[in-house]
Amino acid sequence: MKKTVLPLLFMVAMATTWAQENIIGFSKDASVKQLQLESEFEKQLSTENLDQWMLLLAGEPHWVGTEYGEKNVKWMEKQFKSWGYNTKVETYHVLFPYPKVRVLELTGPTTYKAKLEAVPVEGDPYTSQENLLPSYNAYSTDGDVEAELVYVNYGIPSDYEELEKLGIDVKGKIVIAKYYGSWRGIKPKLAAEKGAIGCIIYSDPEDDGYAQGDVYPKGAFKNKTGVQRGSVMDMPLYPGDVLTPGYAATKDAKRLKREDAPTITKIPVLPISYEDAQPLLEALEGPVAPASWRGGLPITYHIGPGPAKVHLKLEFDWQLKPAHNVIATLKGAELPDQWVVRGNHHDAWVHGASDPISGLVALMEEARVVGKLAKAGKKPKRTLVYCAWDAEETGLIGSTEWVEDHRAELQQKTVAYINTDGNSRGFLGAGGSHTLQAMVSEVANKVTDPQTKVSIAERQAARNVVHGGSDKFALSALGSGSDYTPFIQHSGIAALNLGFGGEGSGGEYHTIYDTYSHYTRFKDPGFEYGTTLANTAGRIVLRLANAEVLPFELQQWYSTVDGYLGEVMKTLETMRSEVEKHNAKVAKNQYGLANDPKKPVKAAEKEAEIPYLDFSPIQNVLADLKNDIDTFSKVDKNQLSASKKAELNQALMHMEQALTSEKGLPRRDWFKHQIYAPGFYTGYGVKTLPGVREAIEQKEWQEAQEQIGVLTGTLKNFDAHIQKLNSIAQ
Amino acid sequence: MKKTVLPLLFMVAMATTWAQENIIGFSKDASVKQLQLESEFEKQLSTENLDQWMLLLAGEPHWVGTEYGEKNVKWMEKQFKSWGYNTKVETYHVLFPYPKVRVLELTGPTTYKAKLEAVPVEGDPYTSQENLLPSYNAYSTDGDVEAELVYVNYGIPSDYEELEKLGIDVKGKIVIAKYYGSWRGIKPKLAAEKGAIGCIIYSDPEDDGYAQGDVYPKGAFKNKTGVQRGSVMDMPLYPGDVLTPGYAATKDAKRLKREDAPTITKIPVLPISYEDAQPLLEALEGPVAPASWRGGLPITYHIGPGPAKVHLKLEFDWQLKPAHNVIATLKGAELPDQWVVRGNHHDAWVHGASDPISGLVALMEEARVVGKLAKAGKKPKRTLVYCAWDAEETGLIGSTEWVEDHRAELQQKTVAYINTDGNSRGFLGAGGSHTLQAMVSEVANKVTDPQTKVSIAERQAARNVVHGGSDKFALSALGSGSDYTPFIQHSGIAALNLGFGGEGSGGEYHTIYDTYSHYTRFKDPGFEYGTTLANTAGRIVLRLANAEVLPFELQQWYSTVDGYLGEVMKTLETMRSEVEKHNAKVAKNQYGLANDPKKPVKAAEKEAEIPYLDFSPIQNVLADLKNDIDTFSKVDKNQLSASKKAELNQALMHMEQALTSEKGLPRRDWFKHQIYAPGFYTGYGVKTLPGVREAIEQKEWQEAQEQIGVLTGTLKNFDAHIQKLNSIAQ
Repeated sequence: MKKTVLPLLFMVAMATTWAQENIIGFSKDASVKQLQLESEFEKQLSTENLDQWMLLLAGEPHWVGTEYGEKNVKWMEKQFKSWGYNTKVETYHVLFPYPKVRVLELTGPTTYKAKLEAVPVEGDPYTSQENLLPSYNAYSTDGDVEAELVYVNYGIPSDYEELEKLGIDVKGKIVIAKYYGSWRGIKPKLAAEKGAIGCIIYSDPEDDGYAQGDVYPKGAFKNKTGVQRGSVMDMPLYPGDVLTPGYAATKDAKRLKREDAPTITKIPVLPISYEDAQPLLEALEGPVAPASWRGGLPITYHIGPGPAKVHLKLEFDWQLKPAHNVIATLKGAELPDQWVVRGNHHDAWVHGASDPISGLVALMEEARVVGKLAKAGKKPKRTLVYCAWDAEETGLIGSTEWVEDHRAELQQKTVAYINTDGNSRGFLGAGGSHTLQAMVSEVANKVTDPQTKVSIAERQAARNVVHGGSDKFALSALGSGSDYTPFIQHSGIAALNLGFGGEGSGGEYHTIYDTYSHYTRFKDPGFEYGTTLANTAGRIVLRLANAEVLPFELQQWYSTVDGYLGEVMKTLETMRSEVEKHNAKVAKNQYGLANDPKKPVKAAEKEAEIPYLDFSPIQNVLADLKNDIDTFSKVDKNQLSASKKAELNQALMHMEQALTSEKGLPRRDWFKHQIYAPGFYTGYGVKTLPGVREAIEQKEWQEAQEQIGVLTGTLKNFDAHIQKLNSIAQ
Repeated sequence: MKKTVLPLLFMVAMATTWAQENIIGFSKDASVKQLQLESEFEKQLSTENLDQWMLLLAGEPHWVGTEYGEKNVKWMEKQFKSWGYNTKVETYHVLFPYPKVRVLELTGPTTYKAKLEAVPVEGDPYTSQENLLPSYNAYSTDGDVEAELVYVNYGIPSDYEELEKLGIDVKGKIVIAKYYGSWRGIKPKLAAEKGAIGCIIYSDPEDDGYAQGDVYPKGAFKNKTGVQRGSVMDMPLYPGDVLTPGYAATKDAKRLKREDAPTITKIPVLPISYEDAQPLLEALEGPVAPASWRGGLPITYHIGPGPAKVHLKLEFDWQLKPAHNVIATLKGAELPDQWVVRGNHHDAWVHGASDPISGLVALMEEARVVGKLAKAGKKPKRTLVYCAWDAEETGLIGSTEWVEDHRAELQQKTVAYINTDGNSRGFLGAGGSHTLQAMVSEVANKVTDPQTKVSIAERQAARNVVHGGSDKFALSALGSGSDYTPFIQHSGIAALNLGFGGEGSGGEYHTIYDTYSHYTRFKDPGFEYGTTLANTAGRIVLRLANAEVLPFELQQWYSTVDGYLGEVMKTLETMRSEVEKHNAKVAKNQYGLANDPKKPVKAAEKEAEIPYLDFSPIQNVLADLKNDIDTFSKVDKNQLSASKKAELNQALMHMEQALTSEKGLPRRDWFKHQIYAPGFYTGYGVKTLPGVREAIEQKEWQEAQEQIGVLTGTLKNFDAHIQKLNSIAQ
């Protein structure tokens, strides 16, 4: 019909425009081909596979060393093989504590014995299985302590400052801290540093219970019996097997004695439910907790110490357990020695439907379709290595041991590592090396959100804007908390971490309620975000695998890192003006006068003035970097000869390593990256420019100036690397 | 001994410096004399009197119309007479509703019958007296309604905006709102405007219960049975007797029919405890309340509507009751026709130890000592009028009827009105006419804080600075909530409201727990802040009474009002940029994309653009005012002749009236003041430059521009008044 002529022409024009689009790392023609490949890849992703595989993989508890975990490993191995992957299982022997004795009781002035057990719920058969792992914190030391209790809010540094003002000391006491506010391992670490002899962590209903929404099984949130398990090993020092720091936990590896392992906690620590916490908190007296410390229990929160007295006894069965990583390789058609590594862990605290199986099944579906396309002649240029890690929950152990085992080869061959973990419904969350930001942004603009049918980039931008942020796509910086850590932090391999979330919240994390039943009701019913994750990560993998020039981009890296420097310098200025204001108030006794004399606090004291630091070395090298990066950005890489491209790729794939320093960070040399690290006192939370930033935050001025020197040196190496790129590209 | 010579000399020098200090309104010599008088006054204040008088006045419940209230009145009359005051009782006949029937029950899907009764507690014999007033909201209409329940957070305008986004309508429903967030009367007013047929108000433990601290009798805070009584008459329309708007409720006054009284609520409303609220809230389903709406009950807060269905039945015994004001006059020695009026109410909801007796006994002690000094020959120059108001709790009725009765004479003779109400331990809170700010600041620098021994000004400044504020002394602007309202808002009489607080918080307000036992444990044990209040208010009264030139100051007035204009203009600009940002998000469907599709909300719509208003008329008259005020400030008033001073005082005492407009504010002509008013939708909360500000907030642009004209006219009158001052002072 005539009427359709114009729109049709218009559509053709649109399609042509789309086809002519250039993507980073690809020439015009290669872009067309790559986008067609990605489109084919996307079409074959099946939500049904995700559903079936989750049913299987999350069918029973499967923490490291379990039979069911081993069954899963064998099944995955079989799957990968069937899809054409050269697949092997690499096993390490890692220390794992199983909880033998767990006693927590209030011994005075009233008594209560903690139940320490979450109840099975109607409608979720998984929760009444018999072999559930008891709730505990892995790598708590054994202990048997009894003392007065002190409530320490989240148990983070600012909370201890508040306690000090109130004149309350935790020395010789047992502390009780809420989950959240930091990674859990910080709580016993800090409590021990302050002299406490035991640590209890509980989920307060304000953060993680009925205040958030209806509790399981009526709703998704934590009921009064749910307990979050989790590792408390001192991962900011080093992750991985506690007995083999920095090297692989092979069968015959030389191991530390357990009592010498620095990442096992110094004091016993146990997580409990809010049902078990309430009698303990109710028995506290002493000052009423500050308003910001109050949780959601129907009580007045007091700090103590005492009169509540508690007895905490923990004994673990410490055994070496096999951690099995599944490593599935699809050899590159053209560049077999350039690897794109892709991983997700497979071990779980209990069933782990959400964490990690939801991410794992997306990875597997991605690998299946990539394998199928390869069989059909569309084999990636570079080698793909799909990994399913064991023992992540206990401390990133499977991935860390594997990376430590193969570090030199990985550093030589790996283009990038792409990680996923638990996945849910909602918005793209993407973190990683900022040299990859431009590429990830392009991919995010290509992937369609299953609920709204706009791109996941547009949806993410909408959310940011509505919450007062920017509509520019940005990668967050990586701290820790999943298996990218040994790659980026320890080995300087460019890394990404991807996942969806924000609309599937719940209280199931690390509890017996993280089941298929819960997941398919509340997290991603229908698994549409599962395939969207496969689509996103898969396109990224395929671009990295097929790019003519590896899709690293430097201008966005520059503005990000320049922004970090600005933040650090501002932090120092803010500290200076805060100290000045503080000291002025001390001089006029204004704190004293503002305080209620019936609630005495420690008299405020003057603080040492904040010195000025010389940031100019960093500023100068950043200025050089800006020039060299501008030069590199102007190069039309598509015009380079094949050999130049090959040479450039060799340089590009090792670029992130120029951002590391083999000496590592102060007091934790396992962490080599000078731009991103998990915070020493935040745990998972990232600290960018960590050497300088943490020294400033800790007011270690000499170290801060030294670290400015270290960072300058690293950035100079990086600049030399950029200059090398430029000389290749001439 | 020799050693003391130097310090002694130094002390003499200090004393001389102090004695030579000039205070506003007094010449050098008069300053010395006045400060000596104030010092004598202060020395004679006795905490013991306050204690004894509170025991007596708060011995039994004494709301308006009670026998015990009448006994109190007679006793006070006797006291004032004994101190030399010409004392009378002026009685008005005001409509008062006594609760006959109070039924609140959950009728579905489960059932619960609200107890509506606070329990007596150990250690507080007052709470087990038999004649306690049942908990209710006075001037709720009678009603018998049954409907589904909706949780509306605080029930203020922004909450209804949120409900609209969620597509929830309260039409035909009964709403349940938390206390706080606004004055209570706003909640039923707004609910009725939105179509609700009933309103329940409860005290949530987050704001007013165990989350704040230990509950009574262990601590000061609201236990689960406590209920806040209070008036819900539409006071922002007009306070005072509901049947006699704008004129005195004398015995034979013409009265509105009750059904025509516009300040009685349109729907029945009842306050309840959190114990009674919990079953109702637990029975709600529908969307989970937004995070900021959550309270402190151990439940998931849902909004509804329903399935919870409630039945609310209220019947009142509506009777005219006598409201007795005690009026005690000490005739001025020199200027008997210039009055300093000082008041505090005497009626209470129950015992009212804190509210109002703690303030009343301070006022009486002040009057006693002033009377004693007068008998000793130190009679104030001007006339003092000490007032103890009845029926304040029900709606500022005693004071309003008295002011309406004597308005012309009061406007002619009153220099200023100084109000107090309940008092507690802590920091000075002072609000009022900014022409009095400089004088109050001087007084605050002379009064010593009993706990810290610095001046109350210094202590207040310390607190402000510690909380990020300024160390400059400032009066807050007066909205409503106590008996200053008929003076300043209705009659243009300069007014102050004074009290101490911040360290005596508790949950006793308007409950059966506001007793002598509670007060002396938690509020101001020892009554030191009671005498400090007497000292502060008494010095202010004596300065106003004895000043050679009335201590009004205009430069601080100017900068304050200029600041208000800046705020209002900024509000408009903020609204403009918010609307622009909002509309940009709507245009890109960013709200839609950011929203969870499983939790549908009403699609965001574009808002009308914010017009530019012409503020130049106000700016021009403020510029004129600045010049004229500068001129006046340069005048050395002490050099003026006695007759000039007399003429100037006549002009100064009527100056505040030049800030009123007899037409009043739009839709509420009882409120005449153009600088300060209670907010139409905040209740007690002040709105400065109310005509202009509220029109802008309500987006009534034509009215806003008109009100700019009205305000300009008022400020021109004020400027003419200043010019008159200048011409007198030439």
